[in-house]
Amino acid sequence: MAWFRKLIHVSSIRSSSLIKPRITSAYPLGLFTSLSHFSSESTIQTPSPKLSQYSGLEPTKPGEKPRVVVLGTGWAGCRLMKGIDTNIYDVVCVSPRNHMVFTPLLASTCVGTLEFRSVAEPIGRIQPAISRAPGSYFFLANCKTLDTDNHVVHCQTVTDGLDTPEPWNFKVAYDKLVIASGAEASTFGIRGVKEHAIFLREVYHAQEIRRKLLLNLMLSDVPGISEEEKSRLLHCVVIGGGPTGVEFSGELSDFIIRDVHQRYAHVKDYIHVTLIEANEILSSFDDRLRQYATKQLTKSGVRLVRGVVKDVQPQKIVLNDGTEVPYGLLVWSTGVGPSPFVNSLQLPKSPGGRIGVDEWLRVPSVEDVFSIGDCCGFLESTGKPILPALAQVAERQGKYLASLFNTMGKAGGGHANTAKDMDLGGPFVYKHLGSMATVGRFKALVDLRQSKEGKGLSLAGFLSWFIWRSAYLTRVVSWRNRFYVAINWATTFVFGRDISRI
Amino acid sequence: MAWFRKLIHVSSIRSSSLIKPRITSAYPLGLFTSLSHFSSESTIQTPSPKLSQYSGLEPTKPGEKPRVVVLGTGWAGCRLMKGIDTNIYDVVCVSPRNHMVFTPLLASTCVGTLEFRSVAEPIGRIQPAISRAPGSYFFLANCKTLDTDNHVVHCQTVTDGLDTPEPWNFKVAYDKLVIASGAEASTFGIRGVKEHAIFLREVYHAQEIRRKLLLNLMLSDVPGISEEEKSRLLHCVVIGGGPTGVEFSGELSDFIIRDVHQRYAHVKDYIHVTLIEANEILSSFDDRLRQYATKQLTKSGVRLVRGVVKDVQPQKIVLNDGTEVPYGLLVWSTGVGPSPFVNSLQLPKSPGGRIGVDEWLRVPSVEDVFSIGDCCGFLESTGKPILPALAQVAERQGKYLASLFNTMGKAGGGHANTAKDMDLGGPFVYKHLGSMATVGRFKALVDLRQSKEGKGLSLAGFLSWFIWRSAYLTRVVSWRNRFYVAINWATTFVFGRDISRI
Repeated sequence: MAWFRKLIHVSSIRSSSLIKPRITSAYPLGLFTSLSHFSSESTIQTPSPKLSQYSGLEPTKPGEKPRVVVLGTGWAGCRLMKGIDTNIYDVVCVSPRNHMVFTPLLASTCVGTLEFRSVAEPIGRIQPAISRAPGSYFFLANCKTLDTDNHVVHCQTVTDGLDTPEPWNFKVAYDKLVIASGAEASTFGIRGVKEHAIFLREVYHAQEIRRKLLLNLMLSDVPGISEEEKSRLLHCVVIGGGPTGVEFSGELSDFIIRDVHQRYAHVKDYIHVTLIEANEILSSFDDRLRQYATKQLTKSGVRLVRGVVKDVQPQKIVLNDGTEVPYGLLVWSTGVGPSPFVNSLQLPKSPGGRIGVDEWLRVPSVEDVFSIGDCCGFLESTGKPILPALAQVAERQGKYLASLFNTMGKAGGGHANTAKDMDLGGPFVYKHLGSMATVGRFKALVDLRQSKEGKGLSLAGFLSWFIWRSAYLTRVVSWRNRFYVAINWATTFVFGRDISRI
Repeated sequence: MAWFRKLIHVSSIRSSSLIKPRITSAYPLGLFTSLSHFSSESTIQTPSPKLSQYSGLEPTKPGEKPRVVVLGTGWAGCRLMKGIDTNIYDVVCVSPRNHMVFTPLLASTCVGTLEFRSVAEPIGRIQPAISRAPGSYFFLANCKTLDTDNHVVHCQTVTDGLDTPEPWNFKVAYDKLVIASGAEASTFGIRGVKEHAIFLREVYHAQEIRRKLLLNLMLSDVPGISEEEKSRLLHCVVIGGGPTGVEFSGELSDFIIRDVHQRYAHVKDYIHVTLIEANEILSSFDDRLRQYATKQLTKSGVRLVRGVVKDVQPQKIVLNDGTEVPYGLLVWSTGVGPSPFVNSLQLPKSPGGRIGVDEWLRVPSVEDVFSIGDCCGFLESTGKPILPALAQVAERQGKYLASLFNTMGKAGGGHANTAKDMDLGGPFVYKHLGSMATVGRFKALVDLRQSKEGKGLSLAGFLSWFIWRSAYLTRVVSWRNRFYVAINWATTFVFGRDISRI
């Protein structure tokens, strides 16, 4: 850092002698510092992969705070990090993404109803200790392997292409490890999905969808495009009739009815939305709600098609019965399954391939490893059914585990290998509070039954929409984002959606 | 479009028979439409390049509105389009960018003080006729060549990589052509600039800067990185001491002092900003203001260095005197020069290579072609000096030309070749209203002299900052963006900047 220190020294001399230079330099005018003192030798040292490969955070010592390592920044991991008592623990988060995505509102960002930044919550705001406390960190990295015997995770940094450093490896010793790395969209082995379809789980997916939609709208207005090509370009096809697919179709429909008709008036008769589902849309909802959803979507112009996708090509999909469906935008919002990382872990799995956990969300075959969220499932031996991959489930598990860790910590079981025979108290119990989904402007469904067979309130229509909006506003993690989401909604209502293609 | 029409037909039958299907199909449940009617033959036709190559907008007929074709969506082109009377003219805008960038506020978006979308104004909002009127269009395309004899521009669409159509050519006949395609950042032939430095003229530049800055901040906290590498990664170097470079350095400094110290506390002592300028910073400003700027920047930690960059490498730059300056982020904000498109035009040029215009902003060697903004310059024969490449100049030219066109149109000179001998009234006269630049939080310079030698008011400090903020709020084109800019500023003030890396 030698040349920096010299620069500061010269700066402080300079600021008191703005007119007359005292240091002889190649640049006589006194307004500037001079670099002529500084060595011309290279001061760069790229971290040598060998030397640094096993740098990392060493195990904590008995007097120090025990360390919780969390893999992932989704609903489960973030709720856990929020609830952990940082007087008891240090928190180290490892994830390729430095923010949480408020997934229920993600579909709204694709068409500009909300801004991308309003649905992203930086980890540093969710758990401020990560920004400030000396022993707590966020590492932009992926976990590569676990060494559960030695209580170590081996990780690799995420870098970003040209002009950024090569990725390097490091390790982090843990007292408690929580795997909350989530799931991946299922492609069912269908060819072409990853190459041509866009998923809807991350902010960059929503950004891609938005840019492509706007590009297609603009290109379709240019001379030289055939009628067939125009129809194809403006045909938006959504695969998957769960809440994500239905909400996105509803948003898109509203965008077409309102904004496209005003701002892309030349092509408003060409743009269409088709939702393709293999079974039933919103299958976890009440029958009457499903019929309501169907009616609303159809009324707003969404074509509902039952079909199974067989093949995905650059400009069309092929269904099982041979029908070809040309598209300009293809959004894939089907179910989720285990990620390659989870598949690679040498841990017992639940039916379906998720990381197997017991009723206390522990991975029972090793010490001090837990798992929450979409990536975990109850082991068959517990007799409990696998919980659905929902934000609600993940959040509840995160909250439970934080509470469990805090209790363990206070009872002296915070450090590695100290909680072997500890009584962990009550197991995790999931109680479904209800499901919500929007189906376009001012219309939503709220299904407050605890299960498909249960009784309970189910509402549809404007009241539901209002409840949905309010509920989400209270769930969004910070005041800053609550404020921004409310502002976005208000602005969209008054001014229409934003259509700059950036 | 045959299969679409059949789908609509089936949909309308369906919505009235939700329970009992009437159409025999492969899917007995009545909730869905069936595609089994539809042909399986391919309905795709990619536009054949040969057939469509010279599709386009034909010349206007005598009874129709004359057509103004504008190349570019910067300050000049947008101000022109805003002011044109669309009762007289149709407006066709051709540009690779569908929005205007409010450049004075662009530096603020790099560190999250403002959001990207707050500084982008879609063309459809600037000139609503483009969204709605049957004869007015926006084409996302680049102009390739001009055929001034036949009053035609030849263009090529902008597409976006994989899964989007191949670009195709088309032509647009004009009654009046306005070339407002702007300028490009000058690299002075220095090797490595385009590959490793980031310019600061477009929203995507600002996005790249922000992502890289956040990435470097996060990577520098990971175990395994040497002290030298950490310093390099967190060294932000800005080349160019004009308003853009100075404002960006000031913003960056403020970001470091406030947000980095709170949210990246582990690395706050490593991050530095260096501004390198070949001559004097803010050379167009009053001397005392320049000294004020120097003092403020230095006080906030920006190192001011006089130097000339000789070479740019992936991790360091080399100055003329041999000094090597390692960097993690390199922002290039020097002057501008003619773009390759302008260089390719077979039109007389001004000194410096810009498109040559007379005092009425006409290109005198041809009929009905005009030019405004950074891409044009007075011909030597006019005796007038080349105006600086400033937003102020461009906007004033756009306003003048809109007024000129409206006058010509009312006097019967709207159509092609009808204004040859028309009296165009007063020539364009530029009166410099003053210059403004910020130098960090709550500090700005306002130089209200008309020229360097003139007299007039020059202010520095908080009052200037307040004037600057207010002035910009009145200049931003739409109420929507005024609102958003104000909201962004307020939120940043209360909550701090947003640091999600999206």
